[in-house]
Amino acid sequence: MEILSTNKAFEGTQGVYRHASAATGTDMTFSVFVPAYEQGEKLPVVWYLSGLTCTHANVTEKGEYRAACAKHRLIFVAPDTSPRGETVPDDPDGAYDFGLGAGFYVDATQDPWAVNYRMWSYVIEELPALIGSAFPADMTRQSILGHSMGGHGALTIALSHPDRYRAASAFSPIAAPSQAPWGIKALGGYLGDDRAAWRKHDAVALIEHGARFSDFLVDVGDADPFLKEQLRPELLERACAKADIPLKLRLQSGYDHSYYFVSTFMTDHMRWHAARLRA
Amino acid sequence: MEILSTNKAFEGTQGVYRHASAATGTDMTFSVFVPAYEQGEKLPVVWYLSGLTCTHANVTEKGEYRAACAKHRLIFVAPDTSPRGETVPDDPDGAYDFGLGAGFYVDATQDPWAVNYRMWSYVIEELPALIGSAFPADMTRQSILGHSMGGHGALTIALSHPDRYRAASAFSPIAAPSQAPWGIKALGGYLGDDRAAWRKHDAVALIEHGARFSDFLVDVGDADPFLKEQLRPELLERACAKADIPLKLRLQSGYDHSYYFVSTFMTDHMRWHAARLRA
Repeated sequence: MEILSTNKAFEGTQGVYRHASAATGTDMTFSVFVPAYEQGEKLPVVWYLSGLTCTHANVTEKGEYRAACAKHRLIFVAPDTSPRGETVPDDPDGAYDFGLGAGFYVDATQDPWAVNYRMWSYVIEELPALIGSAFPADMTRQSILGHSMGGHGALTIALSHPDRYRAASAFSPIAAPSQAPWGIKALGGYLGDDRAAWRKHDAVALIEHGARFSDFLVDVGDADPFLKEQLRPELLERACAKADIPLKLRLQSGYDHSYYFVSTFMTDHMRWHAARLRA
Repeated sequence: MEILSTNKAFEGTQGVYRHASAATGTDMTFSVFVPAYEQGEKLPVVWYLSGLTCTHANVTEKGEYRAACAKHRLIFVAPDTSPRGETVPDDPDGAYDFGLGAGFYVDATQDPWAVNYRMWSYVIEELPALIGSAFPADMTRQSILGHSMGGHGALTIALSHPDRYRAASAFSPIAAPSQAPWGIKALGGYLGDDRAAWRKHDAVALIEHGARFSDFLVDVGDADPFLKEQLRPELLERACAKADIPLKLRLQSGYDHSYYFVSTFMTDHMRWHAARLRA
């Protein structure tokens, strides 16, 4: 693991790191904030998955999570959203919603994507192993959240690993990708036309097929231009109600899809995670 | 005035605006955060001046000031750091510390800079008039702060207008530009070789020549690579002590020159400003 930068912030360390990923076959860059801690102490780990077009940098610079992570003493990890590099295939039309910056947190099965686009394995297996070995992280206390495509990732990963993650939340998640244009394009491209293979990457479908989680916090802005066609939080609300999964869904008046929205409610989300990680 | 973007954030509005400036002869872009307010209410105005290479965007995205401004109900204005545009002359070598992004908050007197580089008049006269007319701003309650070159701007503007600004603070200011390479290059270039003309643009020289201000808050990181050669806070400390100006100078252990440092202490600075603006 190579250190690209470290900066002291809120009495802790905001770092950016790079490593050769076996999962993706590429170098991968990620950021980690480690608050001040006692010698020998291990801290809970919050995973943050970013949205379309993002790298680790968007939330690192604009997410305003450090004050709350310092207060609650949480490690905050932000992976990239796809493999990167000259040899990695991209959307043939260069579209923003597939390929580079749009890994959708799946392990692709279709050519030419299957070689590098393995973000599910990367985020769930490979990067946690590295975080556990290289940082003062208590890997028995993990939680996960994300924004938009990353909100989709957080919900599906939590529903698939309810014993590993003690909390899960999302900003503006793509709640039912099988029923939204972004998701249909991505899941079809990476996983092929057989919709049975999409199920484990669709939070609503997972719940309908029996997946459970302790509870969710989800914030969505009612001025989000993607709300009705792409995000569809009402489908998540219905599925959670039917499955008796407690869902705190807040439609935030006047807020959009940007980091101005995410940063406004980040402190709330860190409080939600801390309460469950330190319970 | 043209609205480039507005986003709801922390129950207020973060906007970015453009207008044709008479002072600089160019279009100028700036950002304004207006917290939630009552009909007819006017809020205090905090001016934030940015450092070398920056535009309004750096602090707007990375400064983490909105939570505190919402809490204390302060309008936060971030101007650009120089005129911009194809016709604006730049440093002949394209250096980062002169010309575009490096206006140093002076009215240039030397050719070819004198036509456009009039950031002193822009920040003190023209933009306040616009803010006072276009936003719910109480212009009898203003304060000013800045980072690096902008810290220099904030200190010199406050010392020149002690009755207008009720509070002034700085992150990593260039405290005595006449005695630092960045400042010598900039003041010499914009104002010429006569050092008497530099005096009103050097906080330490201003204080030595009788300028006064109620009190200052200044944070500097002791891991700032520019600390000893460019910033020289010890000269400000000595001048303030001699002039009986209360200075809260904090050398912050391990912090550097970045926005990771600025954002860490921004809440403190907003509290300092709010206490004086609402006194």
